[in-house]
Amino acid sequence: MHTEPLYRQLASHYLHAIQAGTLRPGERMPSVRVLMQRHDVSLSTALQVCRHLESRGVLEARPRSGYFVRPQARAGLAPASEPVAALPDPARYVGIHQRVSDIVARGQAATVHTNLSGASGAPGLYPTEPLKNAAIRALRQHPDLFGQGVPTLGVPEFRAVIAKRALAARMNLSADEVLITQGCIEALNLALRAVAQPGDVIAVESPGFYGLLQVLESLGMRALEIPTSPQTGISLEALELAAQTYDRIAGVVVVPNLQNPLGAVMPEAHKERLVRWCAAQGIALIEDDTYSGTHNDEAPLSALKSWDRDGGVIHCASLHKTLAPGMRLGWISAGRWHARVEMLKFTQSRPNEALSQLAVADFMASGAYDRHLRRLRVMLRDQREQLAEAIATCFPAGTRLSVPNGGLGLWIEMPQGCSSATVFDAALREGIRIAPGLMFSNSNRFDGFIRLSCGFPYTRALDQALRRLADVVRRAG
Amino acid sequence: MHTEPLYRQLASHYLHAIQAGTLRPGERMPSVRVLMQRHDVSLSTALQVCRHLESRGVLEARPRSGYFVRPQARAGLAPASEPVAALPDPARYVGIHQRVSDIVARGQAATVHTNLSGASGAPGLYPTEPLKNAAIRALRQHPDLFGQGVPTLGVPEFRAVIAKRALAARMNLSADEVLITQGCIEALNLALRAVAQPGDVIAVESPGFYGLLQVLESLGMRALEIPTSPQTGISLEALELAAQTYDRIAGVVVVPNLQNPLGAVMPEAHKERLVRWCAAQGIALIEDDTYSGTHNDEAPLSALKSWDRDGGVIHCASLHKTLAPGMRLGWISAGRWHARVEMLKFTQSRPNEALSQLAVADFMASGAYDRHLRRLRVMLRDQREQLAEAIATCFPAGTRLSVPNGGLGLWIEMPQGCSSATVFDAALREGIRIAPGLMFSNSNRFDGFIRLSCGFPYTRALDQALRRLADVVRRAG
Repeated sequence: MHTEPLYRQLASHYLHAIQAGTLRPGERMPSVRVLMQRHDVSLSTALQVCRHLESRGVLEARPRSGYFVRPQARAGLAPASEPVAALPDPARYVGIHQRVSDIVARGQAATVHTNLSGASGAPGLYPTEPLKNAAIRALRQHPDLFGQGVPTLGVPEFRAVIAKRALAARMNLSADEVLITQGCIEALNLALRAVAQPGDVIAVESPGFYGLLQVLESLGMRALEIPTSPQTGISLEALELAAQTYDRIAGVVVVPNLQNPLGAVMPEAHKERLVRWCAAQGIALIEDDTYSGTHNDEAPLSALKSWDRDGGVIHCASLHKTLAPGMRLGWISAGRWHARVEMLKFTQSRPNEALSQLAVADFMASGAYDRHLRRLRVMLRDQREQLAEAIATCFPAGTRLSVPNGGLGLWIEMPQGCSSATVFDAALREGIRIAPGLMFSNSNRFDGFIRLSCGFPYTRALDQALRRLADVVRRAG
Repeated sequence: MHTEPLYRQLASHYLHAIQAGTLRPGERMPSVRVLMQRHDVSLSTALQVCRHLESRGVLEARPRSGYFVRPQARAGLAPASEPVAALPDPARYVGIHQRVSDIVARGQAATVHTNLSGASGAPGLYPTEPLKNAAIRALRQHPDLFGQGVPTLGVPEFRAVIAKRALAARMNLSADEVLITQGCIEALNLALRAVAQPGDVIAVESPGFYGLLQVLESLGMRALEIPTSPQTGISLEALELAAQTYDRIAGVVVVPNLQNPLGAVMPEAHKERLVRWCAAQGIALIEDDTYSGTHNDEAPLSALKSWDRDGGVIHCASLHKTLAPGMRLGWISAGRWHARVEMLKFTQSRPNEALSQLAVADFMASGAYDRHLRRLRVMLRDQREQLAEAIATCFPAGTRLSVPNGGLGLWIEMPQGCSSATVFDAALREGIRIAPGLMFSNSNRFDGFIRLSCGFPYTRALDQALRRLADVVRRAG
């Protein structure tokens, strides 16, 4: 269904090699003849590979010499700044909801032709047709579905599929440990309510997903913002220092893989160290594993939960970004808090409706899901690279950017002196909506940043909008 | 679609008159000839009316004299006791979850052939086929549904239909004030979180829906249990006395129409007085209006919200009992707490999935919904009456019962000395599951009661099970 043509698969293979630096700018691309022999493909396919990469701006043809790796504009961008490893600010009650709501309301009220503020993809990224058909099949197979109570904890087939797929991220869950929730956001609510009380301190990544800060605010918990690297994720040194210095930390929430907004992936050693440190300190560790499926690399990223030995890690995830933004399907494996989370889910919203679980269990049990994920990864990577390349080409000097290996957004450090609040307003006047850095922390520390979605195909219209946005940033500097 | 045959409609009409006491036991039923003239029906239809009522045990034929209203066994039952109007116990932290969970777990572990413990109906009560078709239509009309984010606050068409239907309960809501939730239980959570903090006192009906007590427990709030009459609902005197005597009450939660488990309907004067008293005291009033659609009478019951003048009433409802137990569709109109509830819903679970809202909006906008409700009312009333009649016939002397005018259950006061805990266990051993009175209060005050579901057709098997249950109660006395 979503099987890529052979030339696209090979093009991806070489694009990957170029991005990884295996083939460097200026180096010669293996010749068409080499490609034919090496991959056992026709002349036409080998030529298509090179022409595709040329059309994408990755290769350039030199007369009578063949194809060469083109110098990438993004190579000229400095990576986003690393946080200064130091003692974080003390934990605070979060007061971000009003700020975020104002920004969202202004964004919604404006006439916007290019919306880069979100963190999900265009409908075309998702297998809407087969999911629709799976839902219709489920309705026909279960004619009394709407006349019967919903299954406790979730639909067994769906829970079984989730447990099975967790194996790839090195987790060993049984279906009984998987509780289906209303998206990852409900899973995070349940996790926090299970491990902490109002007033308690929760350590979070900074910058981090504003939705989590809003949850903490609504639960009356205090956020301890831990500096987080665009490369390696949460600073373990800063976390440990904060734990020694301040009030007891009741829980830590991290996105270990393709963190939002940074796109950081924690190194394996960091993951292990964090799990062990939390276990030793008796601190609950909550992971939000929403983005792993968008990784460039097909090899699955490991979950923090895979290092869990005593049930101290709560794993939360969803299909919102990787399969179906229109379904509210998340889940939680709550380790030693399982019974409490089960109670809280029951009292908070009862089990989820069955239909979308049945449809997705059907889809995920087939090979269609893996084919979809392969296509999603390639499309997102292409969109991300094209967006990064355009930023490198047209944003003002002093712009910094680390292009992550997955995720749905880019986190852009604007030249010194630019304010995301100003850029947000000025961009809206141009019909362009972005996510200002101000949303990603309780402090104003990230006012110099913006997040742009790479969930959309890089069209000519998007290119033009991006150039207008670059002018906005230039004027704001 | 659900149109009843003419003879059934007439039979219902006369059954209603008999139940209302317009035709009394021993009185003569209008003759076949009178029925023919009065309703302009054939001899065959008029005969079917009488024979149907005879087969249901409502009429008896006397040779050469015609049909007479049969003395009803349930007329011999005393109504359930009224609460002693006095000062309620002080508010307490709720500790009911463990008790309820144990009871539910034991019920689920047992081999049960007759489950009367629930408060929803058999699938046959609900229009599963047209709802399934509406869902398939919605999927075809919105092919990208699963690929797009879910609509904020809920699907506009569904919110509009809810607002329109609220007019019948004398509420004047705009669609903008209706926020779609995961069933009524999420609506109650949001309402309580909006008006109160952990530790605050919430007044509730006693006996009352155990799900609400579990919500209070999970939110760390204290329940002030107010004595509640099987006839007129919550005791306003007891509520007022408690407010003068104890800590400040942050909110009151009531089910004004067909309260669970009692089936009480608050008189109009009580509804108005409660709304005015709460407004004067500055106490938030939360109403759970889940059961109104099951009322015997087609004339809609008024909502507390219809007396609200200053936004102090929060209206919560769902379609779980009246349309589709398999959908988690509820809603909330939060009056002056609207913005806070909107924020809490967003942070707690994000907006609901669209599909079931689209399907139900389609179904409710047609005449099919009213036809369904008429059929549901008649079926539930018949089932309820048959169950009550059987209880009157076979339960031991000293059993008391007030048969409500709607709802999905009967609240039975067993003879002095019977414990619902004992009856629950003994009934389970017979393969019969019931809801023990112990579940409906934080105290043990209702251990002498059981709740039985009338959601199922009164079959021979059910009749036999009920007779066995009667023996269980007799032995427990």
